[in-house]
Amino acid sequence: MYNFEALMKIIHSASYPIEFGALSSSSFPAILEKDYASAKKVILVDENTHDYCLEYLLTHFEALKDAEIMLLPSGEENKVMEVCFQVWEALSEYKISRRDLIINLGGGLVSDMGGFIAALFKRGVNFIHIPTSLLAMVDASVGGKTGIDLGKYKNQIGVFADPLAIFVDPGFLTTLQDEEKLNGMAEMLKHGLIADSGHWNKLQNVSPLEMPLELIYDSVQIKNTIVSSDPRESGERKKLNFGHTFGHAFEGFLLGSENQVAHGHAVALGMLCEAYLSVEKGLLPTSDFLEIQACIRKNFPLLAFQEEDYPAIYELMLQDKKNHKSSVQCVLLKNIGEAVIDQPLSFTDVELGLNFLLRLVREK
Amino acid sequence: MYNFEALMKIIHSASYPIEFGALSSSSFPAILEKDYASAKKVILVDENTHDYCLEYLLTHFEALKDAEIMLLPSGEENKVMEVCFQVWEALSEYKISRRDLIINLGGGLVSDMGGFIAALFKRGVNFIHIPTSLLAMVDASVGGKTGIDLGKYKNQIGVFADPLAIFVDPGFLTTLQDEEKLNGMAEMLKHGLIADSGHWNKLQNVSPLEMPLELIYDSVQIKNTIVSSDPRESGERKKLNFGHTFGHAFEGFLLGSENQVAHGHAVALGMLCEAYLSVEKGLLPTSDFLEIQACIRKNFPLLAFQEEDYPAIYELMLQDKKNHKSSVQCVLLKNIGEAVIDQPLSFTDVELGLNFLLRLVREK
Repeated sequence: MYNFEALMKIIHSASYPIEFGALSSSSFPAILEKDYASAKKVILVDENTHDYCLEYLLTHFEALKDAEIMLLPSGEENKVMEVCFQVWEALSEYKISRRDLIINLGGGLVSDMGGFIAALFKRGVNFIHIPTSLLAMVDASVGGKTGIDLGKYKNQIGVFADPLAIFVDPGFLTTLQDEEKLNGMAEMLKHGLIADSGHWNKLQNVSPLEMPLELIYDSVQIKNTIVSSDPRESGERKKLNFGHTFGHAFEGFLLGSENQVAHGHAVALGMLCEAYLSVEKGLLPTSDFLEIQACIRKNFPLLAFQEEDYPAIYELMLQDKKNHKSSVQCVLLKNIGEAVIDQPLSFTDVELGLNFLLRLVREK
Repeated sequence: MYNFEALMKIIHSASYPIEFGALSSSSFPAILEKDYASAKKVILVDENTHDYCLEYLLTHFEALKDAEIMLLPSGEENKVMEVCFQVWEALSEYKISRRDLIINLGGGLVSDMGGFIAALFKRGVNFIHIPTSLLAMVDASVGGKTGIDLGKYKNQIGVFADPLAIFVDPGFLTTLQDEEKLNGMAEMLKHGLIADSGHWNKLQNVSPLEMPLELIYDSVQIKNTIVSSDPRESGERKKLNFGHTFGHAFEGFLLGSENQVAHGHAVALGMLCEAYLSVEKGLLPTSDFLEIQACIRKNFPLLAFQEEDYPAIYELMLQDKKNHKSSVQCVLLKNIGEAVIDQPLSFTDVELGLNFLLRLVREK
């Protein structure tokens, strides 16, 4: 399964370690065999990780032989309370206590929802994230955000809850489809755009389908540095929402339709709209924008919206968690590598961004 | 409405103030008019506080004139996720943001569920508790526990979340029925039993129907001291569960039946069983037990269970959040005023406690 030399690297966050490298060389076995030797273990998986990742865990870690496996249905449309309820009922049935251990093995859905399930059960059971998708490795698993959707509103219900540890084993990347790798790359590009132009530059010269481990590691580190400086999102951390004001609205608007879009793809096009508005507002140099546009268009297909969709998309933006006093607050760029938070967007601004996207579609 | 001289007293917890006295003399008006002047305000009420307490708030605090009022259905059977969902949808509809303010006006159900709703919406909206029942004043509102029930399992789903402030205005006690005052007294007696024999002694000489304000204040302070020393319940705080191993099981077992029992009443009889087991295990002197028995029997009617109910009651105890390795962990007494935590109870122990209660019923 592994095709890289495992050099275990440990990143320290405010309250938990992120171990980067082969799971077998990490402190994961010791946690299972020592700290949690007599505890019950529960592994939460989705349909994909059940088929492609679980066996690796069960055959390599003897301490997991009696673990309870709980399956979360795949897909954003299942990131809902009903599913959490079923898991809580199963946890009650297995008499899981606060001192037992939940292991979230999966992509962003499993770390968001599994963390939420663990954090709320009996007011908090210890949990570990083992992200298996590129997106979960560089983004979703890091930073303590957990949550579920409320109708079309993404992650509207949730809590901040820290895992015991995160184990990023790039070996799991071999289980991914190409589209999932692109998905993760979108958040890596974002890390470059908001905080590190060097990271952005390096990403221009690699294929998302064969992402170098050093760049994955760097991306985890950028995310961790930002969230550690502002765990509860009162300032600095808001930068991570670049691309997400438009992106979340695209994702929510298309959720359940035949054009349903993956998170990273939606965020990539969100970044394009928000970079465009950054130029319109006199913040971002046009040359930087053109570079961003070229990169996003090379990697991500366009999405088409019609003028009559605009009010519904704007309505979704109004539900964003970062808003204040009923106005949409957005992150914009000053340069590649530098973001500014708390930028208000009017409906006219949003229209401008959406018109830009629509023009690109029509020009094709 | 007020029949006492308002001397505002402030108790400081780890992260928020508890202000004891008339709401109008507290910092509540300043919070509304200064800190949250331009924020939206939401008041969560239940059916009782809607009828008996809300008007006082709306007529005395101008800043609440545009507040959104949301009604939670009364009764423990409504402390469920479905109700939270409806409130979250309403909060989304009113475009409530993280920077707005939720005011929980009510008894234990409103502070437990209202705190939970606020803590999870957009990963945390600021909230204030204004407890209106004696139980909520001395217990439920203090200490950051929020949660809802999962079927018969009480408070199985929840989080620790601190309010901005708690305002204990004893003026609201005039809105209570006698049974509700008894309910609150049960938790006050518990505070005496686990931590302060002087408090216990004073409670022996007062009527629960005319509870002196000093004793209410003392009880809030005892609770606050315990929770501040151990906010996440890793040790000391577990003492507060005295009476709750049996009490929660009684409450859960009878939930939805025609014999449904109030929380305080269930806890009072739970304390009686657990005090009895404390003697059986050689911890508590018989003289202390007899004093406890006399007080509880004077104030609270007995509950009848049959032998065939025992396994179901034990099953409920196994779900208690304080358990470890599938064994029931209970708090027992060493003296009036001193508790010991983490005492394992076998099924035989539980039988012994229930048999004792059954004998009392049959002797009547």
